[in-house]
Amino acid sequence: MSKEKFDALFAYTQTLVDLQGIGGVAGWDMQTHMPPKGAAVRGERLATLTSIVHEMATRKELGDLIAASEDYARSQGEESFEFANWRETDRQYKKATVIPTEMAAEISRAGSQGHVAWMAARKNNDYASFKPFLQKNIELVHKVVELSRPLFPNVEDDYDILLDDYEHGMKTSDVAEVFDVFKAGAKPLVEKVAAHAGDGRDAATFKHFPQATQDALVREVAKQVGFNDDEWDLTTTAHPFEHSMSIHDIRITTKFDENFFNPSFFGTLHEFGHGLYENQIDDRYERTMLGHGVSLAWHESQSRSLENLVGRSLPFWKWATPVVQKHFPEQFAGMSAEDIYRAVNVMGPSLIRIEADELTYNYHIIIRFELERALLSGEVTVDTLPEAWNAKYKEYLGVDVPSDSDGVLQDVHWSGGSFGYFSTYALGNMLGAMLWKRVTAELPGLEDEFAAGEFGSLRAWLRENIHQYGSHYTPNDLLFKVLGTRKLDAQPQLDYLTAKVNELYG
Amino acid sequence: MSKEKFDALFAYTQTLVDLQGIGGVAGWDMQTHMPPKGAAVRGERLATLTSIVHEMATRKELGDLIAASEDYARSQGEESFEFANWRETDRQYKKATVIPTEMAAEISRAGSQGHVAWMAARKNNDYASFKPFLQKNIELVHKVVELSRPLFPNVEDDYDILLDDYEHGMKTSDVAEVFDVFKAGAKPLVEKVAAHAGDGRDAATFKHFPQATQDALVREVAKQVGFNDDEWDLTTTAHPFEHSMSIHDIRITTKFDENFFNPSFFGTLHEFGHGLYENQIDDRYERTMLGHGVSLAWHESQSRSLENLVGRSLPFWKWATPVVQKHFPEQFAGMSAEDIYRAVNVMGPSLIRIEADELTYNYHIIIRFELERALLSGEVTVDTLPEAWNAKYKEYLGVDVPSDSDGVLQDVHWSGGSFGYFSTYALGNMLGAMLWKRVTAELPGLEDEFAAGEFGSLRAWLRENIHQYGSHYTPNDLLFKVLGTRKLDAQPQLDYLTAKVNELYG
Repeated sequence: MSKEKFDALFAYTQTLVDLQGIGGVAGWDMQTHMPPKGAAVRGERLATLTSIVHEMATRKELGDLIAASEDYARSQGEESFEFANWRETDRQYKKATVIPTEMAAEISRAGSQGHVAWMAARKNNDYASFKPFLQKNIELVHKVVELSRPLFPNVEDDYDILLDDYEHGMKTSDVAEVFDVFKAGAKPLVEKVAAHAGDGRDAATFKHFPQATQDALVREVAKQVGFNDDEWDLTTTAHPFEHSMSIHDIRITTKFDENFFNPSFFGTLHEFGHGLYENQIDDRYERTMLGHGVSLAWHESQSRSLENLVGRSLPFWKWATPVVQKHFPEQFAGMSAEDIYRAVNVMGPSLIRIEADELTYNYHIIIRFELERALLSGEVTVDTLPEAWNAKYKEYLGVDVPSDSDGVLQDVHWSGGSFGYFSTYALGNMLGAMLWKRVTAELPGLEDEFAAGEFGSLRAWLRENIHQYGSHYTPNDLLFKVLGTRKLDAQPQLDYLTAKVNELYG
Repeated sequence: MSKEKFDALFAYTQTLVDLQGIGGVAGWDMQTHMPPKGAAVRGERLATLTSIVHEMATRKELGDLIAASEDYARSQGEESFEFANWRETDRQYKKATVIPTEMAAEISRAGSQGHVAWMAARKNNDYASFKPFLQKNIELVHKVVELSRPLFPNVEDDYDILLDDYEHGMKTSDVAEVFDVFKAGAKPLVEKVAAHAGDGRDAATFKHFPQATQDALVREVAKQVGFNDDEWDLTTTAHPFEHSMSIHDIRITTKFDENFFNPSFFGTLHEFGHGLYENQIDDRYERTMLGHGVSLAWHESQSRSLENLVGRSLPFWKWATPVVQKHFPEQFAGMSAEDIYRAVNVMGPSLIRIEADELTYNYHIIIRFELERALLSGEVTVDTLPEAWNAKYKEYLGVDVPSDSDGVLQDVHWSGGSFGYFSTYALGNMLGAMLWKRVTAELPGLEDEFAAGEFGSLRAWLRENIHQYGSHYTPNDLLFKVLGTRKLDAQPQLDYLTAKVNELYG
C-alpha cells in the first residue's frame, strides 16, 4: 500500500493532462483563428503530439503504477478524490491499451478520409461516393467491439460498448426504453404543432440583424448569465463549440446569421451552458483526470437547459425583451415579452437535426440511434441506409427527404467513425428536464429571478449539486447522488413539452 | 555512412520541431486571447511541455544519431539541405546539453522571478527591489559562460558566448567596431535634429484616431504589402510581436493608441516584415531545424526595412497618402505626401528605446551593449548600473534621465536573463541598410512601384536572395552569399540617415 506509487501515478497523469491541454489549445486555434493554409502542418503537429500522448497513455510503466497504487487509492475510501482519480486513470488506461497502436492509427486515418469524402459527398449530394468510407468505418467499429469485449464481460448488447465511449456505463436497453416512452408521449404533440406550420409567428426572427449588433447583444446577455472577461473568451466560428483550456479559461464560440436572430442568440446560451459546467468544477480537480464534465449527456443537459429551459422561457424574456429591443429596436418594435417568447418557440417537423426545435429534436436522435443499431446488427447495410433513413423520417416526422444531402448525409459524426455519440443529445435533453424539475422545486423564486435578470441562484445550485464534482463520480453515480435514481426518465421532458405545446398551440 | 541513421535523425528532429510548434500556439494564445485567469495553469502546461522537449533535445539517443549520421550528411556536400539540417541539429544539441537540466530550470525560474520583480520595480520606480534579481541573473550568465566555454575554444571575448545565442557566430569586436563607426558618423546628425526639437511638424499624428478605423487602415495597408487572409492573422496585443506557427500560418499583432497615429501603422509594417521573412521560406524547410529566419539581426533587418526604409519613405507616402486620408479625412486634411512624410519622420534624442526614431535608435542599443559588457567584466555592478546608465544617456543623447522607470528599468530583457540580445536590434538596422543599397541598385524602378502601391518586386527579391533559405546558411554565410562580404558595415545606414536628415532638417 504505497502512497509513493500513488503520487508517482498522479504526477504521471498530470503530465498527460498537461499535454492534452496543450493539444487542446492547438485544436481550438485550428477552429477559430488559424488561417486556412496552416491546416496541413497543424494536422501533422497534432498527429505527432497525439502519438506521443498515446504512447505515454499506454506505456507499461503507467500500468505498473496503476496496479501498485490500487490498494492505497482504495484505502482512502470510494468517495475519496484519490480513489476517483485512480478509477478514472485505470478505466482510460484499459480502454487505450485494448486497441493496438496500429489500429488506433488506422481508425484515425479512416476517420480523416471519411470526413473528407463526406464533405464532398454532402456538397454533391452523392451518397454513393461516401459509401465505401462509411463501410470501412463500420468494419472498424466491429473490430473495436471485438477487441473491447474483454472489458465488458457481461455485456447485453454490443451497442453498449459503443455507447460507453460517450456515456460511460449507459446501457442500450435503457436508452431504447426512454426513447420508446418519448415517442409515444410526443406523437400527439408533434401532430398538434404540425397543424400550425408556417403561421408566421416567428416573422420577427427572420429580419435583418447586423452582425456587430448581434455580437454586442450576445455579449451583454452572456455577461448577464455569468460570462466574464477574466475567465471566458467568445469568438466566432463556422461550427460553434465550447472548449475549456482549464477550469478558469473557458472558450465559447458562436456564429452569426444576419437574416436569422436565433442561431447566435440561443447558440451562445447553449455553449455558455457547456462552459459554465467546466468553469464551476472544483479547483482541486485542475490538472487531474477528473477536471472535465463527466459525460456527453451530462454536458448536453447543461447546455440545453441554458438554451431552452432558461433561454426559451417566458420569465427569461421578461428580462430579455427590453435588452434585445435596445439592440434591435426596429426588428422587435412593439413586441411584448409574450410575443417574442412565442416567436422563438416555433415548433414543427423538419429535415435537419441542428435546426430542430425542442419538441422534434429527440426524434432526429431516435432515428439515428435506431439506424446505428441496425447498422451494427447488419439489419441495415450501407446500401439500404438512405432508404431506411427516409422511411424513418416519413414515419416519425411525416416529412419527405428530398435529397441525401438533407438526409443521411447531413451530419458529420459517422464520417469520422463516431457511432454511439448521437444518443447523448437526446439523453441530455431528458436529463436536463429531470434536473430542472428538481431545480425549480428547490428554488421556487427562480422565475422571478429570471424576470429580473438574475441567474446567480441557478448557477450556485448547478455548481453545488453537479458542476463542482467534475468527473469525480461516474455518470450513473452522479445521477443517483443528485436525483436519487439510477434510471433516466423521459417523463419530465414530456410533461414540460406537453405544457409548453398546450400553452403555445393550445 | 548511413542514410538510415540520417533519416532517423530527421524524424527525431521533426518530432521536436512539431512539439515546439504546438508550444508556440499555446504561447501565442497566452499573449493574445487567453483570459487572465488562465495564466497559472497555462504556465504549468507549458513548463511540462518544455521539460519533455528539453529531455528529448538532450537525450543520448539524439547525440548518437547525430554522430552516426555525420558522414552521410557531409557526403551530401556543404551546400546540401542534409548537411545544413545536420549542422543545425548538432549545434543546438551541443548548446542544450552543455547546460545541466537543473541549471536550465534554475535559469528559467530566475528569469520568471526576475520578470515579476521587474514589473513591480518599473511600476514603483524602485530599482533597489529589482537589484537582487538582476544580480542573480548576472551570476547565472557567468555560470553559463563557464559551462559553454568548451564549445568556444578560441573565443576572444566572453561576451561572444552571450551574443552567440541570438546571433550565431557574431564577434563582440565586430559589433564594437561598427558601433564606433556609427557613433562617430551620427553625432553631427543628432546635433542637427536636436536643434529642431518640438517644431510641431508631427502635429497631425497626435490627433484622435478611433481604433476601429485604425484597424481597417492597417489591414488595408498590410494587404497591399503582402498580407493575405489565407496565410496570415492580425490581432491586437499589449506588446506587439510576430510568431510563425508554420511557413503558411503567420501571426502578427499590433496595438492601437487612439491619440497617436504611428504605433499601429508602423508597428504593423514592422511585424509584417518579420512575418514576410517566415512566410517566404522554401517549403522544403517546413518541419525541419531550418524552418525559421536565421538570426535576430537578420530578422530585424527585414522588419525595420519594411517599417522604415519602405514605410517612412516618400515614394511609399505617394501611394499611402490618399489611403490614410480616406480613413482619416479630417486628421490629415489638406496634407500632401511630402507633409505626411515629414510628419512621420520626426527625429530627436529621447529617453525610451521603443519610441526612438531611426537616427537615435541605435544609440539606445549602443548604450545597452556597452553596459552589458561592463556588467560582464565587473567594471559596472548592479549597484552602479543606474548611474552608469544615466551618464551614457547624457553623453550620447544629451538627455537627463528623470527616473529609473524611464531609464535602466524601461526594458524587459535583463529581467528575464537575456544578455546579448539588444545588439541585434542595431545590427539589424545596419544590415537592413546594407541590403537596401543592393536592393535599390538591382531594382531601379522600386520607388515608382512604391508610389503606385506595388511591392511585389521587393517581396520577390527578398524571397529569392534571403527569405527562401530559412536557416540553411549560417548568418555570416548568408551575408557572404547575398552581399559578398563577411563584415557588417555601419556606413550604408549612415549614408541613408545623412541624406534623410539633410533633406528633412537641411
